[in-house]
Amino acid sequence: MKKEMTFNDLLEMKLKALYDVENQILKALPKVIKGVKNSQLESALSEHLEMTKNHVERLEKVFELVESKPKRITVEAIRGMIDDTNWVMKNVQPEPVLDAALIASAQYVEHYEIAGYGTAITWAKHLGLDEAADILGQTLEEEKAFDQELSALATAEVNVEAMT
Amino acid sequence: MKKEMTFNDLLEMKLKALYDVENQILKALPKVIKGVKNSQLESALSEHLEMTKNHVERLEKVFELVESKPKRITVEAIRGMIDDTNWVMKNVQPEPVLDAALIASAQYVEHYEIAGYGTAITWAKHLGLDEAADILGQTLEEEKAFDQELSALATAEVNVEAMT
Repeated sequence: MKKEMTFNDLLEMKLKALYDVENQILKALPKVIKGVKNSQLESALSEHLEMTKNHVERLEKVFELVESKPKRITVEAIRGMIDDTNWVMKNVQPEPVLDAALIASAQYVEHYEIAGYGTAITWAKHLGLDEAADILGQTLEEEKAFDQELSALATAEVNVEAMT
Repeated sequence: MKKEMTFNDLLEMKLKALYDVENQILKALPKVIKGVKNSQLESALSEHLEMTKNHVERLEKVFELVESKPKRITVEAIRGMIDDTNWVMKNVQPEPVLDAALIASAQYVEHYEIAGYGTAITWAKHLGLDEAADILGQTLEEEKAFDQELSALATAEVNVEAMT
């Protein structure tokens, strides 16, 4: 029989899912960084890898605030996104076209995270967990900023190179 | 050996991926609609199912404009999101908490689509395919509006019910 859950349990479940997502990204990102050619894209992704380590630490802090332990729930969506990205790396060339495709892959992940953190923040606020919401909000802002950085890089440079 | 791709081929690949995503949503959404309790959420999702049929037709129109055929490329990400949603339907109760969780699942999919259409529109514009970009833009606006509708419904009603 299913266990009855509270709204608080649901937030904890979401945190565990986000913890899995961030850790999967940590593991997958180095291979993508090696796969890109454009040097600005390479630096942007490398910076994001460092940022992702912070996102993991922030989640650990939030687990403390909600009196839970950092655990992971297996999220199939992020595994699917990583599989799709690996498919792209195997099947798309030449390099400038691959760079454009990999920006698109990264933006899928960013938008997915924006949705996830957005939900977690809303739920934390409903539960009066303002400090937790603030910490999650810092990560949300960084995900949004990175997504915009990728859009700008695509338009200014990577897509132009892919057309030639 | 890998075939060299043009930027145009890459756009076609993205359209095939979006075509797969929309068709997977068409197939999965009826089960989610049956799984929700809140009647406003049920209507919102049912309307979105109708809208999704339009999104499929719009993609077919865009395939024509780029002189390609409506074909699907298997997207693991959307399959993962659907698996996660099925997991939620199997494991989360009572109903008001499940409704809150299913809004979150739907918003993951919306954000994923927002990223995908955003990329396709940018690429189409770079390639001078303005009519295709316009048609894709109509779907993008509907996905954004639906995401906001879900946020509003969560805050005004579903999350409140889930707390009691």
